[in-house]
Amino acid sequence: MSSPGNNILFPRIALIGAGLIGSSLARLFRRDGLTDHIAVSARTQGTLDKIQELGLADSVSLDAVEAVTDADLVILCVPVRAYAAIAEAIGPALKSGAIVTDVGSCKQSVIDDVRPHLPEGVHLVPGHPVAGTEHSGPEAGFAELFEGRWAILTPEADTDNAAIEAVAELWRRAGSFVEIMEARHHDQVLAITSHLPQLVAYTIVDTATGLEDHLQGEVVKFSAGGFRDFTRLAASDPIMWRDVCLSNKEAILDILGRFTEDLTAIQRAIRRGEADKLEETFTRTRAIRSGVIDAKQD
Amino acid sequence: MSSPGNNILFPRIALIGAGLIGSSLARLFRRDGLTDHIAVSARTQGTLDKIQELGLADSVSLDAVEAVTDADLVILCVPVRAYAAIAEAIGPALKSGAIVTDVGSCKQSVIDDVRPHLPEGVHLVPGHPVAGTEHSGPEAGFAELFEGRWAILTPEADTDNAAIEAVAELWRRAGSFVEIMEARHHDQVLAITSHLPQLVAYTIVDTATGLEDHLQGEVVKFSAGGFRDFTRLAASDPIMWRDVCLSNKEAILDILGRFTEDLTAIQRAIRRGEADKLEETFTRTRAIRSGVIDAKQD
Repeated sequence: MSSPGNNILFPRIALIGAGLIGSSLARLFRRDGLTDHIAVSARTQGTLDKIQELGLADSVSLDAVEAVTDADLVILCVPVRAYAAIAEAIGPALKSGAIVTDVGSCKQSVIDDVRPHLPEGVHLVPGHPVAGTEHSGPEAGFAELFEGRWAILTPEADTDNAAIEAVAELWRRAGSFVEIMEARHHDQVLAITSHLPQLVAYTIVDTATGLEDHLQGEVVKFSAGGFRDFTRLAASDPIMWRDVCLSNKEAILDILGRFTEDLTAIQRAIRRGEADKLEETFTRTRAIRSGVIDAKQD
Repeated sequence: MSSPGNNILFPRIALIGAGLIGSSLARLFRRDGLTDHIAVSARTQGTLDKIQELGLADSVSLDAVEAVTDADLVILCVPVRAYAAIAEAIGPALKSGAIVTDVGSCKQSVIDDVRPHLPEGVHLVPGHPVAGTEHSGPEAGFAELFEGRWAILTPEADTDNAAIEAVAELWRRAGSFVEIMEARHHDQVLAITSHLPQLVAYTIVDTATGLEDHLQGEVVKFSAGGFRDFTRLAASDPIMWRDVCLSNKEAILDILGRFTEDLTAIQRAIRRGEADKLEETFTRTRAIRSGVIDAKQD
């Protein structure tokens, strides 16, 4: 299933993992003919069967080593805590000049877990497309997922520029804006824009789940008051988020601490009936919404 | 601007307040010819001018007493802490048989604040359309706002059935499903489905606003990771929400306490690296999303 050579960015790619993001990338490579060969590896035969049924792979294997052999680009699309073992396994099989990238939501851990296992001459360019839906699995993907969103790359200072540029070009072809920053800085920014919202959403839904039975049904019934927005986030892949929490622990604990302080201050203002303080806080937060709309991320 | 009599539910109505909800109701009454006369009262001449410009009123007045004179239905559409003073002022001017209702997000306080000021023969039917957007003001309204959403009525046990039915019929005409429950029960349910999500959204945006300047710009830029959903809620009317917090204090403090406990448990699991506990929590919350989708409130 090769396509005329003009659009080809990487002759052969390997996708390790084929859930929402991995299968969306496969669809993008297919749609735009960005490669001659898509090798897909996944943990279960069920996922591989589904990927073949969807026509998204030229070869499939339960063995990641088999998938990465001869690959020019390897993209890790599995939960981040699985990276270390995969890197250890595939490291020796990677060809010289190959690029390894990923799509995980935290980035310093990628450098820590993957780099030690890569041979000389293989380039690591960690990446994070800031895009997603609450759906998971190979059927949930679509090639347009990344359009108009940011893709953040966090290469180390000594990374080969051509490798960085090759991965950046892939994301530009996906319709994303590309930003390059340090891994630790990424993890700090995403702790507030993504990891904290996700944890808060999980918690609020968990609090509702813990209510007496007769209240639970009504919580769902009257969820249009704000709750339903949280249920959407709280339906995201639990394994992926478990791994993010553990791999970006420091930044998440720091931001959780700040959030709890701020929430406690509001709780105190409510208890004491401090109308002015509440109004002032609720007014201040309005401005940031305009910023989000201006940045076209709404 | 009267319409053929068939659809008329109330010959004359008075809207006290004409923001998102009030002006949406005015549009609905107009569109479907549900009344012969819409009298609108608001706190500022600017709002009244806008309402007249939009053709949504047959008469306008800065004086609520003038607006409610001869009205068959009075709808309070102002922040809930303004009710007591308005009720005290309009009480003596209400005609016998008139119905007073409202659209506030908490309901026991309506009974406490309004009922004492109503003369014999005037019916109080507190109401709450569980619908809204993050926009405020008379221009933000639209007649379809209530379609497919719930309208909760919380009349006391001794309330005239015909009055309850008249208000219920109004909401059915708006396209809403009507539910009748006790005011305190409403306040408990909405504390979790609406007031807690709102407070958490305000707080998370407040936490971001408190970050160092160089981080703030990036928070907006990469808000697609979850944060932007919270900015939408946090753009809601600050006065309305200040009032809800103060008027539903007990139920809100109770649910905030539960939420904080649950969040602390997750924080502890992250600090201790308890992968199983995180996975279990994040998996449990997924089920409630299916409930919301099944209830068609997504």
